[in-house]
Amino acid sequence: VVIDAIFGSGLTRQPEGLPADAIRAINDSDSLVISVDVPSGLPGEDCCGFDRSVIIRADYTLAIEFPRLSFFFAENHIHTGRWSVVPIGLHQAAIEGTDTPYLFSGINSVAPMLRRRTTFEHKGDFGHALLVAGSQGKIGAAILAGKAVLRSGAGLLTCHIPGMGAQAMHAALPEAMVSCERSDRVVSEIPDPSGFKAVGIGPGLGTEQATLLALENFLKKNRQRVVIDADAINLISANRKLLDKLPDSAVLTPHPGEFARLAGESSNGFERLRKQVAFSQKHNCVIVLKGAYTSVSTPEGKVFFNSTGNPGMATAGSGDVLTGVILGLLAQGYSPENAAVSGVFLHGLAGDIAADKNCMESMIASDITDNLHAAYTKIHEQLL
Amino acid sequence: VVIDAIFGSGLTRQPEGLPADAIRAINDSDSLVISVDVPSGLPGEDCCGFDRSVIIRADYTLAIEFPRLSFFFAENHIHTGRWSVVPIGLHQAAIEGTDTPYLFSGINSVAPMLRRRTTFEHKGDFGHALLVAGSQGKIGAAILAGKAVLRSGAGLLTCHIPGMGAQAMHAALPEAMVSCERSDRVVSEIPDPSGFKAVGIGPGLGTEQATLLALENFLKKNRQRVVIDADAINLISANRKLLDKLPDSAVLTPHPGEFARLAGESSNGFERLRKQVAFSQKHNCVIVLKGAYTSVSTPEGKVFFNSTGNPGMATAGSGDVLTGVILGLLAQGYSPENAAVSGVFLHGLAGDIAADKNCMESMIASDITDNLHAAYTKIHEQLL
Amino acid sequence: VVIDAIFGSGLTRQPEGLPADAIRAINDSDSLVISVDVPSGLPGEDCCGFDRSVIIRADYTLAIEFPRLSFFFAENHIHTGRWSVVPIGLHQAAIEGTDTPYLFSGINSVAPMLRRRTTFEHKGDFGHALLVAGSQGKIGAAILAGKAVLRSGAGLLTCHIPGMGAQAMHAALPEAMVSCERSDRVVSEIPDPSGFKAVGIGPGLGTEQATLLALENFLKKNRQRVVIDADAINLISANRKLLDKLPDSAVLTPHPGEFARLAGESSNGFERLRKQVAFSQKHNCVIVLKGAYTSVSTPEGKVFFNSTGNPGMATAGSGDVLTGVILGLLAQGYSPENAAVSGVFLHGLAGDIAADKNCMESMIASDITDNLHAAYTKIHEQLL
Amino acid sequence: VVIDAIFGSGLTRQPEGLPADAIRAINDSDSLVISVDVPSGLPGEDCCGFDRSVIIRADYTLAIEFPRLSFFFAENHIHTGRWSVVPIGLHQAAIEGTDTPYLFSGINSVAPMLRRRTTFEHKGDFGHALLVAGSQGKIGAAILAGKAVLRSGAGLLTCHIPGMGAQAMHAALPEAMVSCERSDRVVSEIPDPSGFKAVGIGPGLGTEQATLLALENFLKKNRQRVVIDADAINLISANRKLLDKLPDSAVLTPHPGEFARLAGESSNGFERLRKQVAFSQKHNCVIVLKGAYTSVSTPEGKVFFNSTGNPGMATAGSGDVLTGVILGLLAQGYSPENAAVSGVFLHGLAGDIAADKNCMESMIASDITDNLHAAYTKIHEQLL
Repeated sequence: VVIDAIFGSGLTRQPEGLPADAIRAINDSDSLVISVDVPSGLPGEDCCGFDRSVIIRADYTLAIEFPRLSFFFAENHIHTGRWSVVPIGLHQAAIEGTDTPYLFSGINSVAPMLRRRTTFEHKGDFGHALLVAGSQGKIGAAILAGKAVLRSGAGLLTCHIPGMGAQAMHAALPEAMVSCERSDRVVSEIPDPSGFKAVGIGPGLGTEQATLLALENFLKKNRQRVVIDADAINLISANRKLLDKLPDSAVLTPHPGEFARLAGESSNGFERLRKQVAFSQKHNCVIVLKGAYTSVSTPEGKVFFNSTGNPGMATAGSGDVLTGVILGLLAQGYSPENAAVSGVFLHGLAGDIAADKNCMESMIASDITDNLHAAYTKIHEQLL
Repeated sequence: VVIDAIFGSGLTRQPEGLPADAIRAINDSDSLVISVDVPSGLPGEDCCGFDRSVIIRADYTLAIEFPRLSFFFAENHIHTGRWSVVPIGLHQAAIEGTDTPYLFSGINSVAPMLRRRTTFEHKGDFGHALLVAGSQGKIGAAILAGKAVLRSGAGLLTCHIPGMGAQAMHAALPEAMVSCERSDRVVSEIPDPSGFKAVGIGPGLGTEQATLLALENFLKKNRQRVVIDADAINLISANRKLLDKLPDSAVLTPHPGEFARLAGESSNGFERLRKQVAFSQKHNCVIVLKGAYTSVSTPEGKVFFNSTGNPGMATAGSGDVLTGVILGLLAQGYSPENAAVSGVFLHGLAGDIAADKNCMESMIASDITDNLHAAYTKIHEQLL
Repeated sequence: VVIDAIFGSGLTRQPEGLPADAIRAINDSDSLVISVDVPSGLPGEDCCGFDRSVIIRADYTLAIEFPRLSFFFAENHIHTGRWSVVPIGLHQAAIEGTDTPYLFSGINSVAPMLRRRTTFEHKGDFGHALLVAGSQGKIGAAILAGKAVLRSGAGLLTCHIPGMGAQAMHAALPEAMVSCERSDRVVSEIPDPSGFKAVGIGPGLGTEQATLLALENFLKKNRQRVVIDADAINLISANRKLLDKLPDSAVLTPHPGEFARLAGESSNGFERLRKQVAFSQKHNCVIVLKGAYTSVSTPEGKVFFNSTGNPGMATAGSGDVLTGVILGLLAQGYSPENAAVSGVFLHGLAGDIAADKNCMESMIASDITDNLHAAYTKIHEQLL
Repeated sequence: VVIDAIFGSGLTRQPEGLPADAIRAINDSDSLVISVDVPSGLPGEDCCGFDRSVIIRADYTLAIEFPRLSFFFAENHIHTGRWSVVPIGLHQAAIEGTDTPYLFSGINSVAPMLRRRTTFEHKGDFGHALLVAGSQGKIGAAILAGKAVLRSGAGLLTCHIPGMGAQAMHAALPEAMVSCERSDRVVSEIPDPSGFKAVGIGPGLGTEQATLLALENFLKKNRQRVVIDADAINLISANRKLLDKLPDSAVLTPHPGEFARLAGESSNGFERLRKQVAFSQKHNCVIVLKGAYTSVSTPEGKVFFNSTGNPGMATAGSGDVLTGVILGLLAQGYSPENAAVSGVFLHGLAGDIAADKNCMESMIASDITDNLHAAYTKIHEQLL
């Protein structure tokens, strides 16, 4: 076992000479390597242009008090290995006084965001959500997202889906109302959003011309909170003038491929993060960039990295469930920022609980939804 | 902590002078306030015209032996906060001797209403229920209500629904028989009720003209027990002559919005309660006014406030499940009053058990049905 | 408490004088009455013409070593109350030496009937069952029966149902193959039975002319084991020449109403039992007369009364599940007698387990199927 | 009890004289017979032409260190009875040094084959599987296989099925995308495989001409890993030139009947094994011959006998689930050999866990899929 504590963080250039040789020697050895605070040679933020051979490749990293930004990028995983945070009792005020746009959202920061229910509240108080989803062969995405809307607490749900999917939706989720499309294959019109508290668009939607027109018409008249996912993002990427029609603080939930279509390719995680922040600020929207440590960027330039989730969630429909959770929270009156941050956290925590009960290989997206209740319960218990 | 025991109940006018100043001072303070018996200044019944600033705003109220009527109205929740009943050993005969039309239904009063099954009883002895429900996009309501009919104990169930919904119903609830509408979209005829023990009408029904005609024809010839919900109530509200066609002790289950369409707007809970009692008496029906402390009024002028339920039940389809439970009890031969009172209690208790297992945010209507068995079991255990 | 041990069994005429007065006095009292062996005055078999006022009305009866035949008839329930058997150590050989056609099937007699599986057996060894069921609006009956076929151990299942029901069947029971009817509404042809090990006909079938013709054609060419239920029984009752086409030891599973159509009305349980035995002998079939203490009669004149089951099973679809269980056992090669006796026992035991987990009111037919595994396990444990 | 240790293994001809008489005497007795290492007189491999009367018929066999090849053949089950392996501490190197193509796959050999998930892996890293399955009345096979694909860990799944089955698939497995056939009844075209990581073909497919043409066209252009089952095997058997179009190391999963159509009839297990090995070598494919001790043969001539599974898995759809598991593993990048060996092991282990929870009679194929997570967990625990 090698304990690596050669350098702390804050490097602006790479080590040379003896320290560089030491790093290379450690990397060439077969030892188990544990880095303390930061793998030696790894910058705290931007690693662009760094020679990877002179950055420690740890098996584990024990970050002191909080992780570095660079830990959240896939390309640095070979340096950090698995990492965890070790609190050492730094003065809380000192931590909070540190002025950083980067936040690591944990159970303590999410718990106060959750809305509590009171005795006389009724169905209408928890909001009527509209979900626009599905196309021929992709009705399942609407079912997955819809169930997550209701299991995250919305009061009512209307699913606007192609007509052919209504019976499957009724059988699988009788709690949902269905607004039947005139088209049997794709969404070609979107109901007037004014009667709804929030709208989710995208899961399984497809990118046909008719759907694009429906999306355009919808965005022109819509004034409600929205969460936009999957093919709805792809339609916007291919028709960029739609970006100007988004309501304030629209929540977009791209995976890295969809994000690249939206904001351009990035050569590494740090560059992608900068593009994400710039996009959120320029277009006044919340971007939920999905992946390990999902990052949520806000119009004000803040970024929340998520602490929950596991690679068992890299499974078909997992993103549809996340869209449903965020829509369910928006319908209940959460701010877009809070809906995104706490929705991502809940989704990941439910996935972690599902992985404990099942196992990562066997998890499917429905398992995440089925454990949302346990995730809520765990967060509520934190507040006791 | 302030313990508020300034005034008991029975006020007919508001306090003035020093006591009023004390109440205002307590309300302006940040203290945790616990009222004993009644928040000072809160009348026991009608609060109309009272200045709210001279009524204590308690965090908790400990009602002595029984709650006051005013505790059941939403507008007084800011005064009572969460409340519970503290028994202090008042002589039972004294309580029962009190002549009041207002009853608070708990497990002890509901348990004796339940029908017990005996060895040689068969399917026919538990009644054949007819459920008339659903329209295009709202077949789920029929599935939810139907499952609750069978899970509350009816012997047989026929669901009359638009044709398009039959396959979803079969897949989701194979125990139900389906009577297929000639129309694929809406209910436009209702089967002859004479072969059934009880009929439930309304969940997801829609308010089209064809459905109105079907309802009219049905009410003209029907002699069976009925429970009427949702759009069937709305159709009656818009066609008030139908009120005269209701069978004796028809059970109507409006939420406050539907009740306002039926009996007029109310400016507060006390006024609404008086309208509810008057309506029950005038039209010889049982009104189940849904909400926190759901009130069941009878043609004789009695009102039962329900003690079970929680705001997690403010979710899509929860009312459909209640309609199903009441229909299931009517089919088993319960009187309309008992079906309504014990149905509301069972539904709320099942919801409380579901909230314990899941959590309020994640509950969906199916969870209530899935816990009816646990609610029954809890009540049966009370009798041991 | 009155302990009634005035008379033992074996009465051929009713008591008179003092004993009769004593019986009347006990019946008029409010005492809890416990009869030992037999309620005084109750004949062991035929009660026809007896004055019921001079037969004890017990709350409980403790039968010594075995119950009397009369205990199994509904009209005597007011005399026996709840009863149970008290073994007192009579010599086993003496019991077995008693020559009676009446048997009370319990776990000890059923356990040896069950087939055990061995290492190299494959799907074909457990039989391919054909289920002919369903009509418009009654596809659920096919789903319920089909699931029970597979859960009771058949190797393969083909469901011949009207075309409209295929998707519901696939969604609810993907393990079943569907043979689609040319008619969308009713069964109008039945596949060649020669490729199947056993055939079940009846659940939800309807009684249309086309179905009658299909049944006729089927019975003409069929040589396989069959179980016949519900509307297939009704069709046979209305077309009695079909009785001659039944294969040897066909199993028929009527409820009392269907049995009356088949074999005529009976004024009491004893008369119905005699008709059941006569019918089995005359038509060379096994009759499963459903109810409390379901009786299975054989062509040889034996009758097996069942010891499992509860009134929670008096629910829609419970009979469809029983048909499925018996079909599943026939497919596995059980003799018709054993399939009927052990199928009825398994079905009742699964229902008892379901009632323990749920409660009688909330049980639905699917719960019985879902607990077949627990019933099998309980019987297997008996053999350890 | 007779302990049989007359002969060890390695016999090349049958015993005569006194030993033969002893064997016959033991076989004629009623004693419980336990053979040590090998039932006396049973050859280790080929039993062809042996007189079965001079081979011990044991109730149990305790194999020393490893089982003989002959134990895996159904015709020898009457000789071995139930058998298990008793490790006696033979030097591991000696065992591994033994040069045999026959391997007995257990948890220790399978555990290292499993792929572990790492933090930054996403949906695409676990592969997009294409399942081609179903025909009119056999859509359920596609649902069963599809669920197993996702529950064994594939990242994405597209099911190409006849159009009529889409709604059942969506309701039962919303995580799957559906590629709708132009034909409503059968598969008549197969999507371009180039966008997928692996392809599974066969469950419920039928053998119509249109499907044959689709299969031919597919095999001509396909370069991806495939698993071929059921009717796809039957189509290849009837059109043998298709064998030349199979990609390298295609996995075929016949049951004995399908294997006979593919490679000819065999008169016993040993002959069938030799045909299996020869077929794998000649056609460069992996053959999974399903049954007790499922054997997996590879193009290199190795054979893996499986140690998990039970006769409760001899139930409709069990093979569809296996196809799904192997497809799921291929999509995740497992080699065909590892996908077949570990897929068969996982499937059997999940079945064993399901049989423990349910019981062999009541198990249905879905129960296997529902316990894949427990099988994975058990294997992972082995590595701790």
